[in-house]
Amino acid sequence: MTSQTIRVELGTRSYDILIGEGLLAQAGERIAAVLPGARVALVTDENVARIHLETVSASLERAGIGVTTVVVPAGEASKKFDRLQEVVETVVGARLERGDAVVALGGGVIGDLAGFAAAIVRRGMRFVQIPTTLLAQVDSSVGGKTGINSRHGKNLVGAFYQPQLVLAATDALDTLPRREFAAGYAEVAKYGLIGDAAFFAWLEANWQDVFSGGPARTEAIARSCQAKADTVAADERETGERALLNLGHTFGHALEAACGYDADRLVHGEGVAIGTALAHRFSVELGLCPAEDAERVERHLQAVGLPTRISDIPGGPLSADELMTHIGQDKKVKRGRLTFILTHGIGRSFIADDVSPERVRDFLQRELST
Amino acid sequence: MTSQTIRVELGTRSYDILIGEGLLAQAGERIAAVLPGARVALVTDENVARIHLETVSASLERAGIGVTTVVVPAGEASKKFDRLQEVVETVVGARLERGDAVVALGGGVIGDLAGFAAAIVRRGMRFVQIPTTLLAQVDSSVGGKTGINSRHGKNLVGAFYQPQLVLAATDALDTLPRREFAAGYAEVAKYGLIGDAAFFAWLEANWQDVFSGGPARTEAIARSCQAKADTVAADERETGERALLNLGHTFGHALEAACGYDADRLVHGEGVAIGTALAHRFSVELGLCPAEDAERVERHLQAVGLPTRISDIPGGPLSADELMTHIGQDKKVKRGRLTFILTHGIGRSFIADDVSPERVRDFLQRELST
Repeated sequence: MTSQTIRVELGTRSYDILIGEGLLAQAGERIAAVLPGARVALVTDENVARIHLETVSASLERAGIGVTTVVVPAGEASKKFDRLQEVVETVVGARLERGDAVVALGGGVIGDLAGFAAAIVRRGMRFVQIPTTLLAQVDSSVGGKTGINSRHGKNLVGAFYQPQLVLAATDALDTLPRREFAAGYAEVAKYGLIGDAAFFAWLEANWQDVFSGGPARTEAIARSCQAKADTVAADERETGERALLNLGHTFGHALEAACGYDADRLVHGEGVAIGTALAHRFSVELGLCPAEDAERVERHLQAVGLPTRISDIPGGPLSADELMTHIGQDKKVKRGRLTFILTHGIGRSFIADDVSPERVRDFLQRELST
Repeated sequence: MTSQTIRVELGTRSYDILIGEGLLAQAGERIAAVLPGARVALVTDENVARIHLETVSASLERAGIGVTTVVVPAGEASKKFDRLQEVVETVVGARLERGDAVVALGGGVIGDLAGFAAAIVRRGMRFVQIPTTLLAQVDSSVGGKTGINSRHGKNLVGAFYQPQLVLAATDALDTLPRREFAAGYAEVAKYGLIGDAAFFAWLEANWQDVFSGGPARTEAIARSCQAKADTVAADERETGERALLNLGHTFGHALEAACGYDADRLVHGEGVAIGTALAHRFSVELGLCPAEDAERVERHLQAVGLPTRISDIPGGPLSADELMTHIGQDKKVKRGRLTFILTHGIGRSFIADDVSPERVRDFLQRELST
């Protein structure tokens, strides 16, 4: 069994991400080692509960950890006030104290919901993430963003709140649908494209092994977590360089919104894949990035089965006007100026905060007509 | 017009508390000076809106600040999830950004509710407090505790979140009922009793001027804010010395709970007054505090019209068993041990974390039978 540890350096709030096989069955001893004497509230969803709850519960029990379990419906709809209230009241009702922990067992939705509950019960309890999707392991479980959706938009309510421990159980990914694994992989590729050309080249050579499991998968997840951890350590509250992590996301979020967040048409990682390809082609058009780099990016994303063109999205056609509206509403917009992550080439992304909305619209218009 | 400024030193989160007359009418310019260009969501309750909303709104307008107003029902019942959601959705719906501010205009309930909303909208917006009760000015608006009540207990859900500015308008207190002013005064006296015997002696000599307004009132509020600010600066997240601020509160909370939080019987500050008197008498009984100090405390609290005995509470008699149950549920209890703030005399309070529940019960039994 291969495993790696990534340390996220945030002063007194530093913590370890453990990555490897068998961590679900070791959850109890791992948590007891970091939070001795703590009781836990285990938050998960119906799908994950069916596959993994017994393994994790048994492990907690073996370690002598008292557990209260909260199972919420699977899916984005659980990131809402009512569900938050339910989780919070359950945790408080179990009389857990500040030194006890909320444990999130599941994908990004569960991590965001449970993490936010941990942040606000008694003004902050301990928190442990056990991400069970690739997307959650390489992205949402690292960095401390937690929260729910508002009726006015996604992720508009929440807290920056760091866990004490992350257990990224790579074997949990064996039960993921291939489409969902590929969607998470878009974020893995993103880390190479932002600032690590060698990692991107390694992915081009090894992606099949990453998909099939084993040491290459652990390596890819570890390098991704390390990249995100380094960025977060430098800019925890996203006042600067952390924005680089949004490569592909401004376009991607607009595409998701334009599809009405209909997962049959487009899931988040697929939006990021298309958005990343668009960011590279837009950079080529602006004379910033060599055309061959954009082509290489597109080739690799296509090879793993990810969409790279707006026209790859099933269902009705999208309009440039609609996409521009969503881009304008994106919360990364600051006082009316468009901020985009653009690139000088593979591994050379940068923050551009002066992008002209007209050029973006013209670019999208051309993309939509091809 | 007298005014004073207290600086709360919390590194990058430091802020000023302005204390004096006329600050309601200066709210716009004061906020614009600290948060140039920010728009605001003004959160208040129906009672405060009737008296002060026009003054504050007009001032914001004169300063060119865009305002969205949220008025909630007055009273503790507004510290709940539904109301939080309403405030949050209004703020988000007004498209306020992280650099914009939530402004709390009102007493402790409004400050706690609005501050928590500010903490979680977009994972943290700017926040300004305009406390309009003595209790809020000297206690709840200082220190960054925000939150709502759970169905299982008070203040169990929330965040530590600091404002950028506090405007303690002393003339707003002219419209407070005397009973409410006196209740807030219990917290003022507390600061002297915790660690500043000279301040307590000053209050004994000058309390009538504090009640009637003018420079003595401003001075009393400023010294109270300074005392709390110093304690908070030393221990923001209440891991140690900040617990001293709970002098009188463990008994006080138990009394409030035993009265079912019925404000006709007992408001928070009155609970603190009785609790403070009890803490001193209990310290005398334990041989820790001179009897004359406890008598002096009781005399002063009585002089200003505060209750000092459990028997001062109107309505049915309370039982020691019931009070002990509430003391055991207090969130300051850590893993089963009773923590009390006790005292060696006026201005010499300390944290005792090994208090025997039996001695507390015996003491309460005797208090109840007098």
